[in-house]
Amino acid sequence: MVGSDGNLIDLSSQKERILKEFEPLFNPKSVALIGVSSNSKKMGYHVLQSFLKSGFRGSVYPVNPRYERLFGIKTYPSLDSIPDKVDLVVVAVPQKAVFDVMEDCIRKGVKAAVVISAGFKEAEIEEGEEFHKRLAEIAERGGIRIIGPNTFGMVNLGANLNASFTPALSMIKKGEIALISQSGGVCHVIMPYAIKEGIGFSKIVGLGNRVNTDFHDLLEYLAYDDESKSVALYVEGIDEPRKLMDAAKKLSPLKPVVAYKVGRFQHANKAAKSHTGSLAGRYELYLAAFRQAGVIVVEDTIELVSAAKALAFQPPAYGNRIAVISLVAGLGMISAEWCEIKGLKLVEFSEETQSKLLELLPPYTIRTNPVDLGYVANDTKLCGEVIETVFDDENVDGVVLNYIYSWSEDFLQLPVKEIVEAHETTKKPITMCLNFPPGFWDEEKDFLEKHGIPTFPAPELSAKTMAALVEYGRIKRRSQISS
Amino acid sequence: MVGSDGNLIDLSSQKERILKEFEPLFNPKSVALIGVSSNSKKMGYHVLQSFLKSGFRGSVYPVNPRYERLFGIKTYPSLDSIPDKVDLVVVAVPQKAVFDVMEDCIRKGVKAAVVISAGFKEAEIEEGEEFHKRLAEIAERGGIRIIGPNTFGMVNLGANLNASFTPALSMIKKGEIALISQSGGVCHVIMPYAIKEGIGFSKIVGLGNRVNTDFHDLLEYLAYDDESKSVALYVEGIDEPRKLMDAAKKLSPLKPVVAYKVGRFQHANKAAKSHTGSLAGRYELYLAAFRQAGVIVVEDTIELVSAAKALAFQPPAYGNRIAVISLVAGLGMISAEWCEIKGLKLVEFSEETQSKLLELLPPYTIRTNPVDLGYVANDTKLCGEVIETVFDDENVDGVVLNYIYSWSEDFLQLPVKEIVEAHETTKKPITMCLNFPPGFWDEEKDFLEKHGIPTFPAPELSAKTMAALVEYGRIKRRSQISS
Repeated sequence: MVGSDGNLIDLSSQKERILKEFEPLFNPKSVALIGVSSNSKKMGYHVLQSFLKSGFRGSVYPVNPRYERLFGIKTYPSLDSIPDKVDLVVVAVPQKAVFDVMEDCIRKGVKAAVVISAGFKEAEIEEGEEFHKRLAEIAERGGIRIIGPNTFGMVNLGANLNASFTPALSMIKKGEIALISQSGGVCHVIMPYAIKEGIGFSKIVGLGNRVNTDFHDLLEYLAYDDESKSVALYVEGIDEPRKLMDAAKKLSPLKPVVAYKVGRFQHANKAAKSHTGSLAGRYELYLAAFRQAGVIVVEDTIELVSAAKALAFQPPAYGNRIAVISLVAGLGMISAEWCEIKGLKLVEFSEETQSKLLELLPPYTIRTNPVDLGYVANDTKLCGEVIETVFDDENVDGVVLNYIYSWSEDFLQLPVKEIVEAHETTKKPITMCLNFPPGFWDEEKDFLEKHGIPTFPAPELSAKTMAALVEYGRIKRRSQISS
Repeated sequence: MVGSDGNLIDLSSQKERILKEFEPLFNPKSVALIGVSSNSKKMGYHVLQSFLKSGFRGSVYPVNPRYERLFGIKTYPSLDSIPDKVDLVVVAVPQKAVFDVMEDCIRKGVKAAVVISAGFKEAEIEEGEEFHKRLAEIAERGGIRIIGPNTFGMVNLGANLNASFTPALSMIKKGEIALISQSGGVCHVIMPYAIKEGIGFSKIVGLGNRVNTDFHDLLEYLAYDDESKSVALYVEGIDEPRKLMDAAKKLSPLKPVVAYKVGRFQHANKAAKSHTGSLAGRYELYLAAFRQAGVIVVEDTIELVSAAKALAFQPPAYGNRIAVISLVAGLGMISAEWCEIKGLKLVEFSEETQSKLLELLPPYTIRTNPVDLGYVANDTKLCGEVIETVFDDENVDGVVLNYIYSWSEDFLQLPVKEIVEAHETTKKPITMCLNFPPGFWDEEKDFLEKHGIPTFPAPELSAKTMAALVEYGRIKRRSQISS
């Protein structure tokens, strides 16, 4: 690979350097929690709870001179007094104590910090900007990678690391989506949705004020993070969008990046400035820049998570000719409509496929695209054959499949094996709507998702996520042509 | 009230007539299930299960000459042999047997039927149209109100009546939304969402082929159904849209009607024809007609349910000047953005409100609209005061409030009483985003919803549903002016 200076870049050494740099942050062997408390009204209480409840396997050193033990764990008076190397500190002390803690980190040789404490650049106080610079200066002097300040923290679910003030974030299952967010609120509103829908994440990072770790730093890291297969961004406004776009441009041919950007109106702009110290900027400019950088743009939080899930699970679609198959016609119409809203094409089947479908399905059902399986729902084998037939059609680039729970499990079985086989044989992408009352089809959903088939609770989502796969196909092709 | 012929209509007698007509359908005292089966591969098995599992309090008479008892219940050889008046029959026999069953109904004096059997107008068979007409003729001769044919059925959750082939529909809780759908699939995909989110419904009806009960008939009935506070429609295409629009125009000033209409592209149109025998028609024409009729139009299934919930719970907003308050800034920005996308106005607070907010909230948080409670999250009383202050602002027509679960319940409490009081004192509408891991804030959510405050799992939904309340305010005002 050729760098911007025209010289060859040694990619393997770059990878090694970056992974090494982020290792203490995301995979620390020992963590010190600065400012722990027994008082549940304090941040430091919750940070400690997050570690106690997450099943973190490394060493945890709570620090607060007021305690000898907390919740049965030895507590240290200071960072210095910890008789071990410390990889990561989580800082939950008042703003004015943060600088001393960071100086302690330099002395102790700590290379990573999550600074939850607020009252820096985001604060409408005179010294805000100065505090920010001072923190940056200390971090640079010590070579310390900082997440924050003014963040809820971050989690690395693969390492059972919950370096945040919300223990419940550990209830999210381990998965392959990395979420980098400029808002802790967005991470927290996604959390229950992810828990309820069983959506897995690799890492969730609240950027906070980005003293020295911004979107582009994490995008650079995520290129090499094997645990993350897709990247979801929630963006309000940043000072140096070019850096984000450059990093995204490098990452997007390797891993799909999807972004939800707010701030197309003036009010949001003003709020963004107060929230994280940066203007939201002109939405249209961001939109164009994201497109240029190969970032897929979505419209709300549910679509962000859903698209990221589809992109983590499935290969891209190398074309926009989509087939929709539904257990019932209504869902097929909704998916078909959303495919077209998103610029996809409802494919006309090849003659071979069409005649086979006419043969397989009875006359009183829809045998063209979108195909309706409603009247043969309980013939699992036949439904499987129809699905395979559609996958095999050379005109089809991707399949949206909608199944809903009805009758009972005695009557209606999901052709899960046929679905997986059709996908695996043809290598064509599939997104599924699969919704059912709690407890009814959990095994089937598990089986499908273990085989990489992502499921979503609504027919608009199976369509929107297919659109993300088509968009990513375009991005991949474009990057292959230009490289 | 003056009718279209210029004569005065006796509304009380019309109400009585309509309620009486639909009583056997929605509130039957005795139900005969025609075509029950012990074989779980048959529809008649599931129809019986629906009754057995729903807790229906009336009499149930399974009918099939092949059994003497089924699942411990006496089974009758024919409708005639039932020693009781029968209010409703649920028909799950093969198509060719339906006509005889309906003739039996006339002899028995049955006035309502849910015909699940398919193979009528929707079937691509020569006799489809003829079968439909024949069924209509029998129904007219017998004065029988038919839901279907070619439907999953319907449920009246208030009466524990599950006249459908899906027992799980009874897992939905009783509520005040009536859902009338041209697709059973849409009802079935909404079902798990409603169960998981705790959204209650009064009635869910799958129209099927609408032999003599169409949208307009049910809209006429729902005007008088005290159990239904809002009406959600899923529409594909109908033969006489004017009848729907006329009925909606009458109903919409009394009760909010929200519709999701598919079919803006050619493929959906073709599918609609095959699905229920009617073309989807031109989307734009429908859109204009819906607006004219005071129907609120939405864009997908989740928005349909969400808007219907907000409309069932809350009064309309008599103006589009909205305040957004969020536990965290990010969610506020998302809601603010979606408010503006939907044409609402992010209000500028009055001077009085503004100075009070500056007094109540610390300088490093957002004290203008959208207000950020993040930094005072654990001061429940203060959060409550902020919420009350915003509600009191004379410039504010409605409030979008976003709360997310973070830290833990020890740290963060919901100011539920203050929220309810602010809403009840000012009578201004509120929609809430409230999402939390399973088991954490169930009581708080229950408290809020019992007091009529609807909650939604995403900040885009609290905004979209406020837009529905604003739209309904416009519709109400318009109808008051023109009446």
